[in-house]
Amino acid sequence: MRVAGVHRRSIVAANHGRSIEIIDQRALPHALVSATLATTEDVARAIREMWVRGAPLIGAVAAYGVCFALRDDPSDAALDRACLDLVATRPTAVNLRWALEEIRRAVVAAPVGRRLDFGWRRAAAICEEDVAINEAIGRNGLPLLRVLFARKPMGQRLNILTHCNAGWLATVDWGTALAPIYMAHDAGIPVHVWVDETRPRNQGALTAWELGQHGVPHTVVVDNAGGHLMQHGMVDVCIVGTDRVTAVGDVCNKIGTYLKALAAMDNGIPFYVALPYPTIDWAAEDGLTSIPIEERDPAEVHCVEGLRTRAPHGAAGARVRERVRIHPTTSSASNYAFDVTPARLVTALITERGVVAASREGLASLYPDREVAKSGAASFMRS
Amino acid sequence: MRVAGVHRRSIVAANHGRSIEIIDQRALPHALVSATLATTEDVARAIREMWVRGAPLIGAVAAYGVCFALRDDPSDAALDRACLDLVATRPTAVNLRWALEEIRRAVVAAPVGRRLDFGWRRAAAICEEDVAINEAIGRNGLPLLRVLFARKPMGQRLNILTHCNAGWLATVDWGTALAPIYMAHDAGIPVHVWVDETRPRNQGALTAWELGQHGVPHTVVVDNAGGHLMQHGMVDVCIVGTDRVTAVGDVCNKIGTYLKALAAMDNGIPFYVALPYPTIDWAAEDGLTSIPIEERDPAEVHCVEGLRTRAPHGAAGARVRERVRIHPTTSSASNYAFDVTPARLVTALITERGVVAASREGLASLYPDREVAKSGAASFMRS
Repeated sequence: MRVAGVHRRSIVAANHGRSIEIIDQRALPHALVSATLATTEDVARAIREMWVRGAPLIGAVAAYGVCFALRDDPSDAALDRACLDLVATRPTAVNLRWALEEIRRAVVAAPVGRRLDFGWRRAAAICEEDVAINEAIGRNGLPLLRVLFARKPMGQRLNILTHCNAGWLATVDWGTALAPIYMAHDAGIPVHVWVDETRPRNQGALTAWELGQHGVPHTVVVDNAGGHLMQHGMVDVCIVGTDRVTAVGDVCNKIGTYLKALAAMDNGIPFYVALPYPTIDWAAEDGLTSIPIEERDPAEVHCVEGLRTRAPHGAAGARVRERVRIHPTTSSASNYAFDVTPARLVTALITERGVVAASREGLASLYPDREVAKSGAASFMRS
Repeated sequence: MRVAGVHRRSIVAANHGRSIEIIDQRALPHALVSATLATTEDVARAIREMWVRGAPLIGAVAAYGVCFALRDDPSDAALDRACLDLVATRPTAVNLRWALEEIRRAVVAAPVGRRLDFGWRRAAAICEEDVAINEAIGRNGLPLLRVLFARKPMGQRLNILTHCNAGWLATVDWGTALAPIYMAHDAGIPVHVWVDETRPRNQGALTAWELGQHGVPHTVVVDNAGGHLMQHGMVDVCIVGTDRVTAVGDVCNKIGTYLKALAAMDNGIPFYVALPYPTIDWAAEDGLTSIPIEERDPAEVHCVEGLRTRAPHGAAGARVRERVRIHPTTSSASNYAFDVTPARLVTALITERGVVAASREGLASLYPDREVAKSGAASFMRS
């Protein structure tokens, strides 16, 4: 999507087999900083420390991470070690496991001398496929927004609430939840987005930045506000992304998503979840019991990072980043990163193949050709 | 309650008719700073800028604020002007209007030369009554916690979730929602409190500080986390305070309360609301349409204040407060301060008179002697 009017992707692999360039999202929304990743360990750190985040993007970046390992040692052992190192970086998004499995499959079929080349091409294909998928999600979601807008009184904008960042920064391009919104905006529908700030990591700031760069009207709200907005007719539809959808349509997404889905249900507001097929975990059924929920550093809860609002002495005009502690130093915190929204609260799933009920039947109707995994573990995890 | 082992109240009126001492809560939890208020304008600013906050406390402080006006000019006109200035500081908590009306009633009955004295005594009585009320709320709420604890497997603690700060810092002493929790802790029940951080103003930091000073085990969580905790059996009961309860039991409280009530209902967890009788607005029925919801400065959403985590150059060891901006400078924000939880989501109300259903019948059964206001406006607002 556009940054300062110029098209940009969240990951660029210009240097065949050697390195990729990503956006270090920790510096956003205050600065656009690129980073070069050239080793498996670079990639693992970038995922773990959330230089890159978003289920589709971490899958794509991890795919390249495997390739870096093959550059020095194209053996099966090195391949499996890289996959295991990378899959351990973040436990919840199933796209990561899927992408690693895809690369592994492409590589093991190749002659040892050409494994890097085969892997790299598959990683590039994963990126291209992600862009095409998200564009299709946008096309499939757009009619839903058109219908809702057509029902609004003349002259009123369509109010969409989203949680976390499921935009192009969370994918290679377009985004999942934001793809239909970008397309609606580009099609001339007057959309306005309520952006949940999404504590503790404030990914709402990424969403606000993305939308602002593309010219989409939006307003940031605290995570507490969505229920009030919905009670007062200020939200027409919710759209969120997801890190893992089970075979029965339970949706795991950023912590707090469940609360918004409850409020949407209580107020008769449609709640859509946008996802690419690699986000579906066919081996998982009940989301509450089958999906590992990542627990992150309590410091993310205790502290907030941002730009100083007062210029420091002796550094006139400098845009200085600062990290401040909110809570008493004697208090502990817990930091669950995701929650599960039961399928019963989801109006429909928007995928690259179409819009269906969040149910076993709905998903099966779209993916009759799905590969049913007998176990939740990828092949490199079973040995 | 206790601060560093010493008993302390949130407001002290040692200087008859001249000034009161409050805690400037903007400096908490990082520093305990007292402030002296000596004029009506001092009080109005302290309420508006949230040096003091919490429905019962702002009522008590405002009562003294009227007295300061009478010191120089004990006329009816000065009285009404002070009441109007003070009632305008924050629109949602009905305790403010109630306290001003109480002072006005005490003062207009007095000889002009003794108005300050009568007003001051009534303000002091409001403070004493607040402490007694909250102690009674604690006594009435304690058996509810005992019953829930008795149902827990041996050796497990009782997990209580609260939102915002309804502790002694929000009242003169004890608190409303926290009063039963303090009493349970003091009675030897192993309680543990999940403290919602309560963006945007982070009153959870006040709750964490209070609980920490009193030795009550607690864990801070982001506002997004409560649903997940409830889905996984990690919350036994929710208790919150309120800024206004309507005659039918709808509960207006800090933004985000409604979302927690929805999650409690969805998971079969009791959701209690603790309140003193001045929080009941007998003239209001449907909370969603009858309660004015304060909108505050968007800067509260964009920015967070806290203690620097890195010591600044040249100021070794200094505990420096800093305000940082989270969101893009080009994004706007909205900042609704309260929401309404419909009575259907409230398990029961805990008041100084007992525990009742959140309904017209429930409230009427506790307050058969209630003064039914024909209009929502106080007498000084009707002229």
